[in-house]
Amino acid sequence: MSATTISVAAPADFHVHLRQGSFSELVTSHVRLGGFSLAYVMPNLQPPIVNTEEALLYKAQLQAIDPTIEYLMTLYLSPDLTPDEIRKAKQSGIVGVKSYPRGVTTNSEGGIESYEVYYPIFEAMEEQDMVLNLHGEVPSDPTSNTCVLNAEATFLPHLVKLHKRFPKLRIVLEHATTRAAVECVKSLGSTVACTITAHHLDLVVDDWAGQSWNFCKPVAKFPDDRQALREVIKEGHPRFFFGSDSAPHPPDRKSVSSPKQACAAGVYTSPILLPLVATLLESFGALDKLEHFVSGFGRAFYGRPAADERVTLRKTLHKFVEDSWALGDATVVPFWAGKQIGWEIVSE
Amino acid sequence: MSATTISVAAPADFHVHLRQGSFSELVTSHVRLGGFSLAYVMPNLQPPIVNTEEALLYKAQLQAIDPTIEYLMTLYLSPDLTPDEIRKAKQSGIVGVKSYPRGVTTNSEGGIESYEVYYPIFEAMEEQDMVLNLHGEVPSDPTSNTCVLNAEATFLPHLVKLHKRFPKLRIVLEHATTRAAVECVKSLGSTVACTITAHHLDLVVDDWAGQSWNFCKPVAKFPDDRQALREVIKEGHPRFFFGSDSAPHPPDRKSVSSPKQACAAGVYTSPILLPLVATLLESFGALDKLEHFVSGFGRAFYGRPAADERVTLRKTLHKFVEDSWALGDATVVPFWAGKQIGWEIVSE
Repeated sequence: MSATTISVAAPADFHVHLRQGSFSELVTSHVRLGGFSLAYVMPNLQPPIVNTEEALLYKAQLQAIDPTIEYLMTLYLSPDLTPDEIRKAKQSGIVGVKSYPRGVTTNSEGGIESYEVYYPIFEAMEEQDMVLNLHGEVPSDPTSNTCVLNAEATFLPHLVKLHKRFPKLRIVLEHATTRAAVECVKSLGSTVACTITAHHLDLVVDDWAGQSWNFCKPVAKFPDDRQALREVIKEGHPRFFFGSDSAPHPPDRKSVSSPKQACAAGVYTSPILLPLVATLLESFGALDKLEHFVSGFGRAFYGRPAADERVTLRKTLHKFVEDSWALGDATVVPFWAGKQIGWEIVSE
Repeated sequence: MSATTISVAAPADFHVHLRQGSFSELVTSHVRLGGFSLAYVMPNLQPPIVNTEEALLYKAQLQAIDPTIEYLMTLYLSPDLTPDEIRKAKQSGIVGVKSYPRGVTTNSEGGIESYEVYYPIFEAMEEQDMVLNLHGEVPSDPTSNTCVLNAEATFLPHLVKLHKRFPKLRIVLEHATTRAAVECVKSLGSTVACTITAHHLDLVVDDWAGQSWNFCKPVAKFPDDRQALREVIKEGHPRFFFGSDSAPHPPDRKSVSSPKQACAAGVYTSPILLPLVATLLESFGALDKLEHFVSGFGRAFYGRPAADERVTLRKTLHKFVEDSWALGDATVVPFWAGKQIGWEIVSE
């Protein structure tokens, strides 16, 4: 007989987009709703968070929305960053620096083109034990046959090179989507880890072909790539842990109403997150790895203490994902809208 | 100095969807508007065209809309088809039989699962010199890592097997999208040809990622696959000719407004067809192959006489593709809506 309730140490989302303004008020409140108490916050605002002062101001704004969440802040890797700023950031409790290749995803116009100019920054980060978070895709370029499908695999040599040059620098390859990425991260040392999202455990390319709400960057790949993500979780590999990459957009930016404008990249999972991850892990026989995947492994890699708080899930046959959430003039539609979900959070 | 006008023998579209009812009245009138005078008509109506009587009735409906177009009719390969029906169809001037793998594209629910049961039909077709038109994709199946990206490459062994078993049967691999398909067709005998669409000369996977209006089946693939299609046209290979696969859908079936329904597969090019193909061929230095590609090679493979009629195109810097066309309650939005196009048809 399979369990009908399951309890996990407070889940940590090691990759989430909490946005700005009224949209932030709506989506930040969903971290707790989804069963999570730690949010590793991405810096790709408009304009991006490029220094300590901006990160602390953003953190205060998030705390004003929900003070019960532990927010771990990041800076956006850019030419404005200096080794001095890295030291200042570390002293102020900022945990990581996020690198976006130029133009690859939402608000990445200021992203990097080459890593070597950032080596002084990475040296300072290694010395200060700050984490480098990589959006591991190269920009599309038809002349080199690079497109959204091979953008991640083509990026992996950069990861290998960075790790060899900075072996003590902790690096996280974010939102891996391919068997190539899983094998690459496995082959590297203990300072290199990898986040996996919920939606990439569910989707393959067929699911976003003609369905813009399932379009995100990196795009979901082949069934065998999804299988590799599932297998590494089932195996319980400690350097593969959960980061939702939950990325909300207003409905009119996820819909496509004419040939003239493509939709924004991003799948929004925050408000249903822990039930969704439990449902997915159960579907491929990895429910026993839930606690390690959503709480233990990530906290360990980031050197965060294990949480005292616990969250309990209950199996359900009667739960359907909400069609949307709204607050003031902000609306957001979740992944799996209207779809049955197998677990729900037990209120304390 | 490059030419500012170009004249081609009457273009033939060897793969087009002319639909039913009021929608058919709108889109059938666009064949001529797009500069074409021959339409090889796909049979995937609801219900599909499965016998001679239905094909002739459909042909009469199309002739009532525009009697100036030469309509070449096809039957939908299904268990209802018999060798006797093939002979009857041939005597009635029906030219081909279209095979859809089950569930792969619009109205393909009745498509085939295995070819061997159809061998008696193919024998009759070979004897009667009817053409077999293949939608060359296998259905997606996660357990065998099959998805929209490798569906065409995975189909190719079926094409090779059919050609070996029926070497005199004329076979057209429709709307090729991959280098693998181009190389496969090249390697086969003179009875095997291949159509190429306009949109697959333009799009790669990035263009339909998050943009449902560019989603069609087969999906556009890697830049190198697009390059292979361009190269084989530039080379002037006589077994590669034009078939638009122009596939109109109402705007509400191409838009995506919620996560609950994916859009219909299909790109609509009919009303801008010859100017579009000229613009694309010019972009990769193959404008001198336009006449062979859109008129000569296809007519030769199908054994149709060369056309007396000619169409003249003029280079333009002032032409933008219309946002939509409407007739009664039917509306359709073209590929490249609002975009500049480099050639226009000179009215007679």
